[in-house]
Amino acid sequence: MQIRISGTGRALPQHSLSTRQIEADLGLDPGSLQRATGVVSRHVCTTESQVDLAVAACEAALRDASLTADAVGLVVSGSAVPYQPIPATAPLVMRGLGLADGTAAAFDVNSTCLSFLTAFEVAARQVTAGVVDHALVVSSEIASRALPWATDPETAALFGDGAAAAVLSRSTTDSRVVTTLLRTYPSAYGACSLGAGGTRFDYHRNPQDFAAHSRFAMDGKALFRLTALHFRGFVDDLLTRAGWQRDEVDLIVPHQASPAALAHMVRQCGFRPDQAVMIAETVGNQIAASIPFALDVARQDGRLRDGARVVLLGTSAGVSFGGMALVL
Amino acid sequence: MQIRISGTGRALPQHSLSTRQIEADLGLDPGSLQRATGVVSRHVCTTESQVDLAVAACEAALRDASLTADAVGLVVSGSAVPYQPIPATAPLVMRGLGLADGTAAAFDVNSTCLSFLTAFEVAARQVTAGVVDHALVVSSEIASRALPWATDPETAALFGDGAAAAVLSRSTTDSRVVTTLLRTYPSAYGACSLGAGGTRFDYHRNPQDFAAHSRFAMDGKALFRLTALHFRGFVDDLLTRAGWQRDEVDLIVPHQASPAALAHMVRQCGFRPDQAVMIAETVGNQIAASIPFALDVARQDGRLRDGARVVLLGTSAGVSFGGMALVL
Repeated sequence: MQIRISGTGRALPQHSLSTRQIEADLGLDPGSLQRATGVVSRHVCTTESQVDLAVAACEAALRDASLTADAVGLVVSGSAVPYQPIPATAPLVMRGLGLADGTAAAFDVNSTCLSFLTAFEVAARQVTAGVVDHALVVSSEIASRALPWATDPETAALFGDGAAAAVLSRSTTDSRVVTTLLRTYPSAYGACSLGAGGTRFDYHRNPQDFAAHSRFAMDGKALFRLTALHFRGFVDDLLTRAGWQRDEVDLIVPHQASPAALAHMVRQCGFRPDQAVMIAETVGNQIAASIPFALDVARQDGRLRDGARVVLLGTSAGVSFGGMALVL
Repeated sequence: MQIRISGTGRALPQHSLSTRQIEADLGLDPGSLQRATGVVSRHVCTTESQVDLAVAACEAALRDASLTADAVGLVVSGSAVPYQPIPATAPLVMRGLGLADGTAAAFDVNSTCLSFLTAFEVAARQVTAGVVDHALVVSSEIASRALPWATDPETAALFGDGAAAAVLSRSTTDSRVVTTLLRTYPSAYGACSLGAGGTRFDYHRNPQDFAAHSRFAMDGKALFRLTALHFRGFVDDLLTRAGWQRDEVDLIVPHQASPAALAHMVRQCGFRPDQAVMIAETVGNQIAASIPFALDVARQDGRLRDGARVVLLGTSAGVSFGGMALVL
């Protein structure tokens, strides 16, 4: 697909929360949670909404692209958890950006932590087909909302809030999406879950079941088993489709599951640590916002020269593996 | 897009609930709610889950397409409300269909009542691009879950549960998607909403706000104003893009908002009543499942001959207008 990332942007809530502070609040040994998670700090929403963050990230991406909002014909929100069940989140982002009624299409895409990748592909196909000239893809997450602090602080402390966005435009240069790949392994559907909030538990008739499933839960071992078994092969498949060798990849922009999981994944897949963007230590796992957030950090740090070969890569609840090979 | 609908299927929960029964249960005058809504009966889930319905509809669509599940490389769930917030719903449908790990991609798309249309377009672009040979698109809704029976029975009685699916395959004949159009009008974002279940209200910290927004709410007048102002123009735009006159359309498969809204929409847009599939009287408004459910009914009733010109058409919370022109 002849697609160019013409701008990226990110947004964080104001309040930064250190792991040391969490340790103090929970009465844990100083340094224990930081050692266990590798996360030093993360930002958490106090007054900001998920939509505030999304709009701020989109505005930053539009500035980076030197475009005004009215150039956008499509807004795709790719977040694991929506602002509210009905309507979708993207129309509210569209409204926040000041887009006039009827000037764009707005909808949501969800593949949990890989939602940005999936939304990127969906939007890119519309741009390539000429449906729109410019599309905004945004992931915004309040990961801090339903964490299992009481029962599993080592999982809870992995997460952080944030949003990031990209403007996709038709490419007239060599910039392109070389290939994309998404594969789902539903045998591990239960390994990561937030059960309450959809139709599974009736809030009105079964409030106890609803409450019992109202915190995020993760079975790290089940996830590790699945990725150990299949992820390297998935990456082989992605690179074969791209026609790239590992050392030809200039930059890996991975999902920031956790600092340790990230380092392991890079090693396991045969990449060098310096090929990957790693930011989980300071912002945590921002669910779907992780990949575009890391992409924006890399871009602002000057790691994304024109013509660079970039791989967006990650795993998500579901479980799915996803990757996209791009020439910038 | 060279796309063929190679199969469709639908599923209903076993329990049928008549409007007369609801009138009796709520102590309303016999016939009053039926006159107000035009809905005579709907099915509601008692033991079935949203995923059970989705899987049953997919299995019916696969049978109709004479395909086995392992032919499917992509499962897109297009429902307004998910089974649970994390993971997405499609991986669980994939598991329910017995698809092996790693053999398909599964993710969700959400544009509320237009989710099937949006998911159809997303899947069709992947089939057209050769990413997969066959894609399953499914919409499944438990609309009965959060209805405002106490405060607004005339809205609550419009809805019904159900699921429907379609198999999309590459076309080697004249079958194709001629054009698609989605336009969002976010000024009316608040006209239809279910506020609790996403990040907007914190279930743990603000349980009262969560509870206060845990029922679906609809401002019918605001919706009517918006559609009166813009919907006919939207349909004009869609038909112009398709290159079709109104009388060249063999069948309109509309979102089944309500029997009255449907009849009004058909008139307002300049179509004849016999051009439209109308099923809301017996199954209610099934949110995103309405359009594919009506499509399957029309197909089984023999109203969809090869070569027919069909328009899928509707409005959704957001507010969005959506349409797709197909040659079967």
